[in-house]
Amino acid sequence: MSTSISPLATPFPDLPAVAGATPRVARAHYKTWDRCDLTFVTLDEGTAVAGVLTQSKCPSPEVEWCRKALVLGKARALVVNAGNSNAFTGNRGRAAVEAIAARAAGQLGCQPSDIFVASTGVIGVPLPIDKAEAGLDAAFNAAPSDWRAAAEAIGTTDTYPKGAVTTAIVDGRTVTLVGIIKGSGMIAPDMATMLGFIFTDAAVEPAFLQAALSAANGKTFSCITVDGDTSTSDTVLAFATGKAGNAALTGDDSPGADAFRAALADLCRQLAMLVVRDGEGAQKLIEITVTGAESDRSAHRIAMSIANSPLVKTAIAGEDANWGRVVMAVGKAGEPAERDRLAIRFGAVEVARDGLAVEGYDEAPVAAHLKGREVEIGVDLGLGDGRATVWTCDLTHGYISINADYRS
Amino acid sequence: MSTSISPLATPFPDLPAVAGATPRVARAHYKTWDRCDLTFVTLDEGTAVAGVLTQSKCPSPEVEWCRKALVLGKARALVVNAGNSNAFTGNRGRAAVEAIAARAAGQLGCQPSDIFVASTGVIGVPLPIDKAEAGLDAAFNAAPSDWRAAAEAIGTTDTYPKGAVTTAIVDGRTVTLVGIIKGSGMIAPDMATMLGFIFTDAAVEPAFLQAALSAANGKTFSCITVDGDTSTSDTVLAFATGKAGNAALTGDDSPGADAFRAALADLCRQLAMLVVRDGEGAQKLIEITVTGAESDRSAHRIAMSIANSPLVKTAIAGEDANWGRVVMAVGKAGEPAERDRLAIRFGAVEVARDGLAVEGYDEAPVAAHLKGREVEIGVDLGLGDGRATVWTCDLTHGYISINADYRS
Repeated sequence: MSTSISPLATPFPDLPAVAGATPRVARAHYKTWDRCDLTFVTLDEGTAVAGVLTQSKCPSPEVEWCRKALVLGKARALVVNAGNSNAFTGNRGRAAVEAIAARAAGQLGCQPSDIFVASTGVIGVPLPIDKAEAGLDAAFNAAPSDWRAAAEAIGTTDTYPKGAVTTAIVDGRTVTLVGIIKGSGMIAPDMATMLGFIFTDAAVEPAFLQAALSAANGKTFSCITVDGDTSTSDTVLAFATGKAGNAALTGDDSPGADAFRAALADLCRQLAMLVVRDGEGAQKLIEITVTGAESDRSAHRIAMSIANSPLVKTAIAGEDANWGRVVMAVGKAGEPAERDRLAIRFGAVEVARDGLAVEGYDEAPVAAHLKGREVEIGVDLGLGDGRATVWTCDLTHGYISINADYRS
Repeated sequence: MSTSISPLATPFPDLPAVAGATPRVARAHYKTWDRCDLTFVTLDEGTAVAGVLTQSKCPSPEVEWCRKALVLGKARALVVNAGNSNAFTGNRGRAAVEAIAARAAGQLGCQPSDIFVASTGVIGVPLPIDKAEAGLDAAFNAAPSDWRAAAEAIGTTDTYPKGAVTTAIVDGRTVTLVGIIKGSGMIAPDMATMLGFIFTDAAVEPAFLQAALSAANGKTFSCITVDGDTSTSDTVLAFATGKAGNAALTGDDSPGADAFRAALADLCRQLAMLVVRDGEGAQKLIEITVTGAESDRSAHRIAMSIANSPLVKTAIAGEDANWGRVVMAVGKAGEPAERDRLAIRFGAVEVARDGLAVEGYDEAPVAAHLKGREVEIGVDLGLGDGRATVWTCDLTHGYISINADYRS
């Protein structure tokens, strides 16, 4: 983990244990570093699993493995390797994933398809099977860790460990949802080299868990971007151990389904924001809300066009209320827009309306807003009811330094 | 014009006069600078015109004006304002364009629709009509300038003036094509704050001139990107004065049509490359060729995904053969790709093949290639015959400095 912590970092919360999910960490020495880089979370029998995976056409073998295993809906363990993404490594990469799943299945007496694997780091170097196996053995024999140790062990260029917790009342029982996540660059989750893992003691059928996770993903992970670059390895997995004792959630009509979905969405949102706050070189968190679009989908595309614009992001870095660049980004999105209906605000102050600058708007609160750590940009298109909110960070010298100096 | 010249700059060529096209420049004082910022090119009667304009949904009133006037296919003058794009200025912006066209038409005794107007600079500030009119009058009364003075007067954040020339034999006559262009940031011509103007003494019917320009645009201006940000004002106009004495080119079957089209495409390519070479903060010119795609269109989209990836661009800035980032950018493009058929080269050296690193490839020539000013990346998808070449520059601290410090 980097030594220079993002100015947008928030403290790691106090995460409770989740009955049925037990994290352990070990040193697999995937890089020449002295830190834990293999995380092994064992899950009690009966654990349901759901996941959302990168839409990249060049996914890692881990992503392909998880996609297949998710069909079965059940899990006994999660293995996360940090420092090597194992992506774009052909048959050797596939063999490494198979070897990890087989080793863990042997330790736990389950099927390899019960083992979920995720890896993050450099692309193009096959994950060394001997290090993975030795690391797994060390983790299996280690004492359980806390979630913070796991959150640290899954990180790469992250500048701080990221975790979140929430609860919901389901069927008269309080269920706990805990999540850990990593990611800082190559972040534009098409669903983010983002890996996120959620653990709950709720009893949830896999199909409903998947539906709830997919819905939450659409409003959270899919709404963040650091650099518009989508990883080969993006993975979010949710595991439900069923130990809370509620009657299993099977669908929208199940008692507590709404509460669970809301809690899951809240957790995903917390986790997503932690990633943006650790965006490479980030000095400011930017929330972009587009309203008045022809559809929610159109609003989302326009918002992402703004969020991914280097000129908008550098303007915010420079604390410059350069709304002309916002106009540019709306215009290039390719979505329905009418210049002369467009309104733009920074914070609470409308700076442009009906396709031109608001004459004599008060610049002082705008300047003050832009000096803060959290910047809001609002765009109203004046066309319909479509709306979307996305989150990004500014583009600074820090991003260039991190990525022009990182050697493959 | 900036004082720090791009390391990729090329010298301004010796541009000949074009019979029937007469440039003049003046100081309109659009900004507090001591330089010419209004260019006025008068065109003799009988001049044909064609153009390609930004696809932005928030175009400047100049773009809208040109779009309408292009329908008539004839031109008597071009007016270019630098320092103020007049974009997103509502009725006042439209009024400014109309006033300029009316003033110039009055001077020349023609219709306002014979006057083409383009402006570049800050967005959201109405172009001051009084300055424009005084500038026009000064230009009208000035002695003709050379093309270099015009190329300098249309620039904004450009670090050097940009022009190109070529000739073709058409109908037994040598015709001359001269072009000037400006642009450095907000460059992703969806047809680039790119303005380009081409003047030829060839006799060409407007419809054929338009067809030839659109075709050339597809392989040149539409294949360059600096930052993926598409301007509200991108404009390329081609004027044909007809003074060379050839029988007018009317279609593909006209004698010399092929030669003219090839010359126009060559000129457009030269101009496009000059813009990329002046990309904000650029230290290296990057040529990306994608082959083996399902279609040319698919190849173009994948090539642009690579060209616009901040992680690829920073890797090149860092002289790092990080082909994993190229894989990432292929994967996120959303176009057909099969990871295990993918091959990637830097310069002439294949570094990945069949979905994994080429073992033991010679790193020395790759490292040497990356240290140069011009970097080639090749990607073969192994799927079909589709191919495309695009050009971009690296992403450096210079881009951040320029754009985080530029105040609106």
